[in-house]
Amino acid sequence: MEKQKKIAIIGLGYVGLPLAIAFSEFYQVCGFDVNSTRISELNNSIDSNGDIIVSINDKLDFTSDEKKLASSNIFIVTVPTPVTPNNIPDLSILEIATRMIAKYISKGDIVIYESTVYPGVTEEICVPILEEDSGLKYNFDFYCGYSPERISPGADKYLLENVVKVTSGSTLEVADDIDKMYQKIIKAGTYKAPSIKVAEAAKVVENTQRDINIALMNELSMMFDKMNIDTSEVLEAAKTKWNFLDFKPGLVGGHCIGVDPYYLLHKSEEMGYKPTLLHSSRSINNKIASFIVEKTK
Amino acid sequence: MEKQKKIAIIGLGYVGLPLAIAFSEFYQVCGFDVNSTRISELNNSIDSNGDIIVSINDKLDFTSDEKKLASSNIFIVTVPTPVTPNNIPDLSILEIATRMIAKYISKGDIVIYESTVYPGVTEEICVPILEEDSGLKYNFDFYCGYSPERISPGADKYLLENVVKVTSGSTLEVADDIDKMYQKIIKAGTYKAPSIKVAEAAKVVENTQRDINIALMNELSMMFDKMNIDTSEVLEAAKTKWNFLDFKPGLVGGHCIGVDPYYLLHKSEEMGYKPTLLHSSRSINNKIASFIVEKTK
Repeated sequence: MEKQKKIAIIGLGYVGLPLAIAFSEFYQVCGFDVNSTRISELNNSIDSNGDIIVSINDKLDFTSDEKKLASSNIFIVTVPTPVTPNNIPDLSILEIATRMIAKYISKGDIVIYESTVYPGVTEEICVPILEEDSGLKYNFDFYCGYSPERISPGADKYLLENVVKVTSGSTLEVADDIDKMYQKIIKAGTYKAPSIKVAEAAKVVENTQRDINIALMNELSMMFDKMNIDTSEVLEAAKTKWNFLDFKPGLVGGHCIGVDPYYLLHKSEEMGYKPTLLHSSRSINNKIASFIVEKTK
Repeated sequence: MEKQKKIAIIGLGYVGLPLAIAFSEFYQVCGFDVNSTRISELNNSIDSNGDIIVSINDKLDFTSDEKKLASSNIFIVTVPTPVTPNNIPDLSILEIATRMIAKYISKGDIVIYESTVYPGVTEEICVPILEEDSGLKYNFDFYCGYSPERISPGADKYLLENVVKVTSGSTLEVADDIDKMYQKIIKAGTYKAPSIKVAEAAKVVENTQRDINIALMNELSMMFDKMNIDTSEVLEAAKTKWNFLDFKPGLVGGHCIGVDPYYLLHKSEEMGYKPTLLHSSRSINNKIASFIVEKTK
């Protein structure tokens, strides 16, 4: 791990793009995306998501040509992890990205995942793919890490560098190495989790907590509607207590809040625990849209 | 309402006692409790709950003789509102206290409830009792108010005077009057809610929110147990995010958190909305004790 780091970022969406730009201040970075339109836009300093100022520099290369990954030794995966129409985790893009990386990793390389997953995905799903397709051995030839993205799209106050970043690695040494790498770009500092699984779990827990708190507000608004009580008046009064949490009823926002709990839910049921609270909050937040429409009529 | 206020506090538990002491700085106060042992202890400056310094003064009279209520014109009810073994709101003590007050109210008097109730209890249950037993007419002869207690027993930082108090009254004038009365004793200030129902709802919402957040932590700990993940490690990592709410798994504490949600739940179902989130958080927090016992074995 003494050799100079060359970083490849796989997936240049709202997570990968700011990461590629930030790392290019310290390392040679190859930003890869399968979407060639996105690549030509980025090469013209255009972010069609509208969030990021794309400053081209000679340490940053945007490409849709996967062969250019060959010269990298750190691979950071920032691809979408959505759910199927039945709300089952859809890991297909993550698996495709992992198969692609497997073609280009060599001895000593590190693969870090930032995509939101359920606990176990990195080591139980991605690592076997990497081993099989590369012929290399995990924690002997190559290593892994997990550092959950905490981007809030559109929230200027909470840009990449301003939010503490959780890091983790597959050995103590690799965990240290990954943590130091992220320390360079995160002004708010990093938090080195004790294991990859813990880092994976932390991320889904964050968004699940938010989902449940919004679900409570939505349940209250459906309940108070039946009682002819104005929910906003109740919340105004309740929040005068020092420890009341100021959530509002409404649609759950962002790319993640409405999706991530399904990841945790899926793994939990696989392991034999049916999470009733997660189920009911998802179900409430899914039906609130039609409740709002109906009330607006 | 120009006459001098004489306040009776009905129920001298952890809510009524500090209230009686605080009001006695400004008004003649009669502190009533059916428990005569409690009264003789208080008359000897002993609070067997251990929390309160009982400073006897000549404006404060502790009694278990209900006839002494006759000279009061403000009645504040701070009696327990528990649930039955089947978790149905048990309003019997509140109703008994209300029947007793009805014997002593006269024209111009105000009855204020501080006991936790579901929205509607004051006006749909207590007011009819007061009218029937006294022969007086609501909002013509006598008035009501609701000001939810926010005492955290044992938390020195959040004593009565340090926590904003929600007030409400059955007419605009009475609401003002009640609010001004509480302003005298609450350093943190008051919040005048637009109606009694809203003030009632605010209180149960506060504790329901806390119950649900603890239920999530408990659900996570049962879930991560199946996944062989240390929940405390996950929460340590998650709380490095700026908006993560620092709750812990465990038993729900206090006299209220485990009880108040049943009040909201009951009223909601009566009105035709079955609150799945409230149900599942209650059920999780009820079974966590046996989970902890089992894990400790």
